[in-house]
Amino acid sequence: MALRVAVAGASGYAGGEVLRLLLGHPEVEIGALTGASNAGTRLGALQPHLLPLADRVLEPTSAETLAGHDIVFLGLPHGQSAAVAEQLGEDVLVVDLGADHRLTSAADWEQFYGSPHAGTWPYGLPELPGHRQALKGARRIAVPGCYPTAVSLALFPAYAERLVEPEAVIVAASGTSGAGKAVKPHLLGSEVMGSMSPYGVGGGHRHTPEMAQNLSPLAGEPVTVSFTPTLAPMPRGILATCSAKAKPGVTAERLRAAYAEAYGAEPFVHLLPEGQWPHTGSVYGSNAALVQVALDQHAGRVVAISAIDNLVKGTAGGAVQSMNIALGLPEELGLPLNGVAP
Amino acid sequence: MALRVAVAGASGYAGGEVLRLLLGHPEVEIGALTGASNAGTRLGALQPHLLPLADRVLEPTSAETLAGHDIVFLGLPHGQSAAVAEQLGEDVLVVDLGADHRLTSAADWEQFYGSPHAGTWPYGLPELPGHRQALKGARRIAVPGCYPTAVSLALFPAYAERLVEPEAVIVAASGTSGAGKAVKPHLLGSEVMGSMSPYGVGGGHRHTPEMAQNLSPLAGEPVTVSFTPTLAPMPRGILATCSAKAKPGVTAERLRAAYAEAYGAEPFVHLLPEGQWPHTGSVYGSNAALVQVALDQHAGRVVAISAIDNLVKGTAGGAVQSMNIALGLPEELGLPLNGVAP
Amino acid sequence: MALRVAVAGASGYAGGEVLRLLLGHPEVEIGALTGASNAGTRLGALQPHLLPLADRVLEPTSAETLAGHDIVFLGLPHGQSAAVAEQLGEDVLVVDLGADHRLTSAADWEQFYGSPHAGTWPYGLPELPGHRQALKGARRIAVPGCYPTAVSLALFPAYAERLVEPEAVIVAASGTSGAGKAVKPHLLGSEVMGSMSPYGVGGGHRHTPEMAQNLSPLAGEPVTVSFTPTLAPMPRGILATCSAKAKPGVTAERLRAAYAEAYGAEPFVHLLPEGQWPHTGSVYGSNAALVQVALDQHAGRVVAISAIDNLVKGTAGGAVQSMNIALGLPEELGLPLNGVAP
Amino acid sequence: MALRVAVAGASGYAGGEVLRLLLGHPEVEIGALTGASNAGTRLGALQPHLLPLADRVLEPTSAETLAGHDIVFLGLPHGQSAAVAEQLGEDVLVVDLGADHRLTSAADWEQFYGSPHAGTWPYGLPELPGHRQALKGARRIAVPGCYPTAVSLALFPAYAERLVEPEAVIVAASGTSGAGKAVKPHLLGSEVMGSMSPYGVGGGHRHTPEMAQNLSPLAGEPVTVSFTPTLAPMPRGILATCSAKAKPGVTAERLRAAYAEAYGAEPFVHLLPEGQWPHTGSVYGSNAALVQVALDQHAGRVVAISAIDNLVKGTAGGAVQSMNIALGLPEELGLPLNGVAP
Repeated sequence: MALRVAVAGASGYAGGEVLRLLLGHPEVEIGALTGASNAGTRLGALQPHLLPLADRVLEPTSAETLAGHDIVFLGLPHGQSAAVAEQLGEDVLVVDLGADHRLTSAADWEQFYGSPHAGTWPYGLPELPGHRQALKGARRIAVPGCYPTAVSLALFPAYAERLVEPEAVIVAASGTSGAGKAVKPHLLGSEVMGSMSPYGVGGGHRHTPEMAQNLSPLAGEPVTVSFTPTLAPMPRGILATCSAKAKPGVTAERLRAAYAEAYGAEPFVHLLPEGQWPHTGSVYGSNAALVQVALDQHAGRVVAISAIDNLVKGTAGGAVQSMNIALGLPEELGLPLNGVAP
Repeated sequence: MALRVAVAGASGYAGGEVLRLLLGHPEVEIGALTGASNAGTRLGALQPHLLPLADRVLEPTSAETLAGHDIVFLGLPHGQSAAVAEQLGEDVLVVDLGADHRLTSAADWEQFYGSPHAGTWPYGLPELPGHRQALKGARRIAVPGCYPTAVSLALFPAYAERLVEPEAVIVAASGTSGAGKAVKPHLLGSEVMGSMSPYGVGGGHRHTPEMAQNLSPLAGEPVTVSFTPTLAPMPRGILATCSAKAKPGVTAERLRAAYAEAYGAEPFVHLLPEGQWPHTGSVYGSNAALVQVALDQHAGRVVAISAIDNLVKGTAGGAVQSMNIALGLPEELGLPLNGVAP
Repeated sequence: MALRVAVAGASGYAGGEVLRLLLGHPEVEIGALTGASNAGTRLGALQPHLLPLADRVLEPTSAETLAGHDIVFLGLPHGQSAAVAEQLGEDVLVVDLGADHRLTSAADWEQFYGSPHAGTWPYGLPELPGHRQALKGARRIAVPGCYPTAVSLALFPAYAERLVEPEAVIVAASGTSGAGKAVKPHLLGSEVMGSMSPYGVGGGHRHTPEMAQNLSPLAGEPVTVSFTPTLAPMPRGILATCSAKAKPGVTAERLRAAYAEAYGAEPFVHLLPEGQWPHTGSVYGSNAALVQVALDQHAGRVVAISAIDNLVKGTAGGAVQSMNIALGLPEELGLPLNGVAP
Repeated sequence: MALRVAVAGASGYAGGEVLRLLLGHPEVEIGALTGASNAGTRLGALQPHLLPLADRVLEPTSAETLAGHDIVFLGLPHGQSAAVAEQLGEDVLVVDLGADHRLTSAADWEQFYGSPHAGTWPYGLPELPGHRQALKGARRIAVPGCYPTAVSLALFPAYAERLVEPEAVIVAASGTSGAGKAVKPHLLGSEVMGSMSPYGVGGGHRHTPEMAQNLSPLAGEPVTVSFTPTLAPMPRGILATCSAKAKPGVTAERLRAAYAEAYGAEPFVHLLPEGQWPHTGSVYGSNAALVQVALDQHAGRVVAISAIDNLVKGTAGGAVQSMNIALGLPEELGLPLNGVAP
């Protein structure tokens, strides 16, 4: 019998992408779809690409509308997921697409988000050492941020093998869907097309502590992250260019071996052949992450680059992958591996 | 037991899209992949988005490499498919992605393509009256052109119900993948981004007679087509804006009823609710066609607009849909209905 | 002594483009810049591309702030320009970038805009027969709509020479800046990139009667316009594809001669050499209009296509060109003829 | 009397942009336009945006066609400019848009370009300390690379004031025109739209030694550059994100003061107000460079970001600016300061 799934925040980009993936998932059945200001609206008017759900009408997000489902995805504003989850009970698998339960440090949370910490849930990045195991049987999942997903996949093998120094410099370009569907002047098509723009420069982006949290335990020392996100003129995709000083004696062969071992058995993370670099266009609509790494001998730095689709592996796909693990389903179920290219 | 499929021209956009769809098709197994100048190259270097096939190496296109398959897709230059098909034998299902066998009129072929006509194959647009039936059991399929697919779906209900006069005016915008992967200066990213440009204006585009061929039998009189294609700054998608004078007495209700009836039972063609118009972004990567129609009372014209993904419903998806019908498989097997949006 | 210019609505796209052009105009000096909700804001925060004006602060739009200038450009919401102009007095040149004073028919105005007609001002499309003369010495100018500019330039020589029938079919693609800077969900970058979408289909677009108004007097009979605008994934540019049935006996030579004569002496409208079609990218940032025309013998239609930059020739450039004429300055002063390409 | 200018390589992007700027330059007159494979072609067919030059025909690049001009711009393949310049004589101002004469180190040249070094010419980045003076009266100018221009402007004040450590990490995104007009599969619009892609990763990009050459003398110690260029889905623009460890005791105030002083009197380089970051869209078509800098206290790094138009300040505009200086003309003559936005 199919598992019944509800999606709260079905009118947003993250919620819509969860629905796109679940429509191709053989073990689930889509139940309640909820929204806030959009409650009462046909989904076809909000997400015209989800044809089989066009005639569904959004319900208000509440304990009542979300009750009676086996799985609930939450695409809610910051600070709302804990209360909703509590009302749903402990047997329901609650997958939080938002940030509320990602950080383990309450101090970091309060510094970067400016509100009380709501507690930590199992972190949905199964490729990180130990995380896949921790997700098995979980009934709460904190879906990682899109940038931390891209950055952690690019860098963790280097840190886990202690090949690089603990100061990482990261510049990432993201498609505009990462900024969500709320209308803001700088997100108008006229503004973003033909233009690259940085934001959150100088250490202030909220995803910064999440990156450090993922990498530091593997490094065995605190990793400091210098992170600069930029907005690129494309709807989807993250290209994360990450570098750190190579530890003394590290060779290109040693480096490559670390990545080959880390990703050899992973279904969704692919280390490209030497000399081929990841393009975000290759993972458009796919749950794959493409990774490549090189040693810049002259500058003495390891440069690792990853490409993901911010809405798939960076949000909805990572969420479904973790859901599969939590429920004991095959990890790849319902998840596209091929990109829609060109 | 899985059906074995070969794809000739696997390095091009059409061939690549066929492979993307077949990788999600439960009844087929991908066999030989062939190319011309790219023979000997890893597919991962040419189609980096097709991860499961990355290590496949292209073979040369020949009767030998294509032999031993149940189904062969041909993405070849004009004039080559008839000879290849003959060598494959009558039991193999040959699906031609090119133009060679689309036109029934040898005179039209010779006028627009400037070479001898290679004969007509069953035409793979199952939504056209009578065509679905004709495809059942077929072992040769001519996949329609991308523009004729979009235009025929936008206009045929109006012609079939004799609601419009036989002079159609069509302006269509296409993504650049419709122009293929051959490198030409005007297709450089620097040239196409930020620019709309017409081409083949004044009646010369090769898809013009194919549109007339589809519409005239339904109209019961020869339909004259004025067709202007334009190149739009996007990788995929066709938006076809089609109009014709309304016949006397035609009402908006009568018009809408004709489209509702034509598409009510179609799995891939969706008539949108009144007032909602098709966006190509909604069908990105999907085999769906979105259609809307209106009566402009003042101008006395019926305006019908369709949106498709030129590489899916306009090429590879239409091809797989027709393949399914020919083989007696469920028509929708392996075909995405949801678009990848935003 | 320099002429002093004020711009009301300086934070919008039209106002910003007027300023960009005026900064390169040798005879003017930029005075008051006003806004509504943006009053009090640095222009550098709103229009970061206008470096020399970055430290200017927007004043509120009022008779007081606009007083004391020789020329006032109005980029205001519908219905506001008449009252402002009255307060400025008859000696001030008032150039209205909005629609209020374009239509000569009060009935058309009321039908399409749903408000009382505010009267007609001299129409700023100097290339139309008789209009250049009418603009000389004018102190009120109604700047044409962007679509009517593109369409009138594409079609008027054919109508003026009575070469086509009075039923025009027009499909135009516009960059997103034509929709203005007001934030609306469908104008988000995530929505418009990679997608073409129609709007105002079926005769409802407000620019339709303006096109008919321009063409009918030249045709000597009422011209009926079927107009479908589409939104293209680019910031700027209009490509207008226009066609009408050829009158009996019209030849390609006759047609070409009509256009060559109409535009031979025009500084900004260029008839391209035979076989070369206009790209919007060629007029990016320029006041030029590129035009081409062909006779489709088979369909019996004349197809005329124009490309303009909607913000320049379609709005601010046309406005400055008409200002030059009104003031007796050289018509081309301060207006770029070259596009910014690629 | 106007100075006569010839442009060799007039069919390329750099040559075309030089022409666009020179058409607005009051002191020059455009003479011979030359090309290699395009000799004999109308410029209107190659550069349709340069309307006043549409009927010019390209001549072959040779000493004869380039003779008799006061100024010659060279947009030639690597290795050709020295021989051409020698034939032109010492009185002619030769402005090389290519790389041949940028590097002072023959060893660096040979390592990165694989050919014999052709000698060093005065380097056309007048904002670098001492360079403006060196350009006065010069008759040979090496126009800097586009990336080194962006990076040097972002970082030099920090190095000149010894505020940062000599290991710079740079990630830059460039529009596709930076890759030139030669047709290559990865530059097709279908490939670049919707995708970010890195290239030349790991220290191999030819602009790397040029950056070090600009920064090291100011730093007073050898600066090591880790440079990763990426291709962004836009025609123009470079966004350079540059960082280096802050030296002990450096404060945000000290940092800002260094940049304010460096750029306070510069006509084309603008330090943005605190908190406002550069967008490439703001400098589209303009010779301006926008710069911003911040101190990331937590990571201990200075982050400096610049935005330029790669074809203007990064190539043709920088070339004309240096030409003006060399000839004793006002430095800003003929150079747009405002961007074409949105």
